[in-house]
Amino acid sequence: MTETIPPGTRFAALPSPFAFKRGGELHGARMAYETWGDLNAARDNALLILTGLSPNAHAASNAGNPDPGWWEGMLGPGKAIDTNRWFVICVNSLGSCKGSTGAASVNPATGEPYRLDFPDLSIEDGARAAHVVVRSLGIERLACVIGNSMGGMTALAYLLLHPGSARAHINVSGSAQALPFSIAIRSLQREAIRLDPNWNHGRYDDAHYPENGMRIARKLGVVTYRSAMEWDGRFGRVKLDSEMRGDEDPFGQEFEVERYLEGHAQRFVRSFDPNCYLYLGRSMDWFDVAEYGGGDVMKGLASIKVERSLSIGVHTDILFPLQQQEQVADGLRAGGAEAEFVPLPSPQGHDAFLVDIERFGAAIGAFLQRL
Amino acid sequence: MTETIPPGTRFAALPSPFAFKRGGELHGARMAYETWGDLNAARDNALLILTGLSPNAHAASNAGNPDPGWWEGMLGPGKAIDTNRWFVICVNSLGSCKGSTGAASVNPATGEPYRLDFPDLSIEDGARAAHVVVRSLGIERLACVIGNSMGGMTALAYLLLHPGSARAHINVSGSAQALPFSIAIRSLQREAIRLDPNWNHGRYDDAHYPENGMRIARKLGVVTYRSAMEWDGRFGRVKLDSEMRGDEDPFGQEFEVERYLEGHAQRFVRSFDPNCYLYLGRSMDWFDVAEYGGGDVMKGLASIKVERSLSIGVHTDILFPLQQQEQVADGLRAGGAEAEFVPLPSPQGHDAFLVDIERFGAAIGAFLQRL
Repeated sequence: MTETIPPGTRFAALPSPFAFKRGGELHGARMAYETWGDLNAARDNALLILTGLSPNAHAASNAGNPDPGWWEGMLGPGKAIDTNRWFVICVNSLGSCKGSTGAASVNPATGEPYRLDFPDLSIEDGARAAHVVVRSLGIERLACVIGNSMGGMTALAYLLLHPGSARAHINVSGSAQALPFSIAIRSLQREAIRLDPNWNHGRYDDAHYPENGMRIARKLGVVTYRSAMEWDGRFGRVKLDSEMRGDEDPFGQEFEVERYLEGHAQRFVRSFDPNCYLYLGRSMDWFDVAEYGGGDVMKGLASIKVERSLSIGVHTDILFPLQQQEQVADGLRAGGAEAEFVPLPSPQGHDAFLVDIERFGAAIGAFLQRL
Repeated sequence: MTETIPPGTRFAALPSPFAFKRGGELHGARMAYETWGDLNAARDNALLILTGLSPNAHAASNAGNPDPGWWEGMLGPGKAIDTNRWFVICVNSLGSCKGSTGAASVNPATGEPYRLDFPDLSIEDGARAAHVVVRSLGIERLACVIGNSMGGMTALAYLLLHPGSARAHINVSGSAQALPFSIAIRSLQREAIRLDPNWNHGRYDDAHYPENGMRIARKLGVVTYRSAMEWDGRFGRVKLDSEMRGDEDPFGQEFEVERYLEGHAQRFVRSFDPNCYLYLGRSMDWFDVAEYGGGDVMKGLASIKVERSLSIGVHTDILFPLQQQEQVADGLRAGGAEAEFVPLPSPQGHDAFLVDIERFGAAIGAFLQRL
C-alpha cells in the first residue's frame, strides 16, 4: 500500500467512532495537516486550504519541511496568501494516502489496510474531518476557507454543514456538483484501475500492483487537467529524437506530448494509492449541493451564509468548466454574500491554479487584502 | 480476428504490389466500397465519401443492402447528397476491417492474418487506395471529394497526391494535421489496448481478446466525440435504478452517463479489430499537410487546387476543433479556391455530423446544389 507522508506533517485525531454520511465509521482515524504563520490573539486570522484530489498537506515550505510545496508560489510571507498576516492551515483530504486516514491506512479492527472495507467516502465526510482539525487548533471561525478543484466542493460542504464557520470563501476551479463529462472521465479512470488484473478487488501489494490501470488513469487525468490550446503552443507536433523512442514497440512514443504524459504517469503511479484514488474520485461524482436545496443547486448554494466570496476559474478548464465557478458566485450572492466571479484567460486548463500563479495570485491576493 | 463485411459490398483490387508511403507493400490487396445513383455519360457527377476511423462503406441503404447506413439521413434521393443527381461512392478505409485490406486480413504470403506485419499505414496510403477505386469505375475527375473526420485528412491527401482529381472538396470536421490533444487521446487509446495482456503484441484470437483495452479505448473515444454541453442536457446527474446497477462491484455504474458509455463499448469492442484500430489511429497522428508545404501547413494547403470548397465543423468539437476547419478553408482559399467556412452551433461535438443532419445537411446540400 502507498502511504507517503511528508516530514513535518502534524496530525489531529478524529472522534472515534467517526461516522460517514453514507454509513460506516472509522475508529482511531486521523487527519494530517500543516500550518504557516501565527494565529493571532483574537483567533480570527485563520485560513483553511482544502486541496484537489492528489496533493498532500505540504502546500508550501515551512519550518517543519523546507521543501517547496505544491502551491509554493502562492503561499508564504508577502505572497498572495500572506503568512505574515494569516495563519494558514492545509489539510490532507480524508480518504487520501498522504497522512490522513484512507483506504491504504491500517484498520485497527483487523491490523490490515482497509482496502475496500473503507466506508463509502463522501465529500461531506472530508469537510467534517477538516472541521475537526480547525476546531482542534482552537479556531471557532475561519477568516476564509479556500478550496481548489475537489477542495472547492469540500469547502462548500464545510460551509453547508457548519454554518457560520467562515467569514469568507474562495472557490478555485471548483463546482457545486459533478456534471456528466467529469463523471464520465472519472468513471473511466476508475474502470481502467478496476480492469487491471493486479487491482484484484483492491487486494494488491507492491509486487502485484495495478500499475497499468494507474498509468491510464493518470494520463487521462493529465489530458483533462490541461488544455488543447496550451499543448498546441507547448508541444505542437514536435517528435522525439529517434534514440528516445523504444524501437521494440511499433506503437510506442513518438511525439513530445506522449513523453510528457509518460513522465506524469511515472511520477504518479507508485506515489498515490489506487484504492484511495477510487474512493476520492467517486466522492466527487456523488457531490451535489442540490441535496441541500430540495433538489435545486442554486437554493442549496443560497443557503450558505458567508460575508464575501471569490469564485475563480479559467476559460480552458474542461473538467470544472468556468460556468460552474460562475454558478457558485451566483448562488452565494443569492444567499446574501458579496460574491465576486473572476474568469481568467489562463491557457493551462483546470491545472492553471497550480501554474499560473501570476493571474491566480493577483486575484486571490486582492481578495484577501480587502478581507 | 474481426472482419465484418456488410452484404452488398463491392470490391476493387489494388495494384499488386501496392507500396506504402513509409515502406512495405501489400500483395493482392483490395478495397471495399458501395455506390448510390448513376454515373452520367460525361462521367462528371461522381462524389467520393471518405469516412472517419470506424465506419464501413455502407453510408446509406441501397439496392445491395437495404439496411440503414451510418449517414442514412444525409445520402439518398432528394436528400442533401442527392443520389438522383450524383453518383456517390463510399470506400471503407484501407487498413480497416470492414472489407478493405487491413491488419486483420489474411496475408497471402503466410496464409495468416497480417497482425503487426501489416506495413506502417499512412493517411496517404488510404488516399491512394481510394483513388484506385475511383479510377476503376472509369472516373477521371470527381465532382467532389467529401471527407469526414479522419476522412477529411484522407481527402486532403487525395487532392495533394492527385492534382486535378476533383473539382470541389467538402471537409467535414476534419483537419490538415493532428494536434497534440488529439494525439494524446489516440496515444492513450492505443496504450490501453497494448497494455491489455490479451493483446499479446497483436496475436489475440476470439478466445483471448483484448476486450478490456478496447473498452477503455472506445469509452475514451466516445467521451471525446461528444461534448460536455450535450451531456449536461442529455444526462445531467440522472442515476440508474438500483436494480440496473451491479451490486457485486462497489465501484460499478451509478449514473446514466456511465450506462451510455457502457452501451457504446459493448457494441464496439468485438466489432472492430484492435490491431486495425491501432494502425488507423496512428495514421491520423502522423498526418500533416505541412509536409507538402516545406514545413508550412498553410503552404501545403495552398498547393491544393480545387475550384470550390466547404469546410464545416462545430464549436463543441474538442478532437478536431473548429479552428482546424477554418484553417483548411483559409489554406484552400490561398490556393485559389472559392472556399467557404461554415461553423455550426451543434452541441454534439465531433460526432455532430453523424447526428445533427438538419444543420450539416443544410450546409452540404446548399454547397452541392451550387456545384
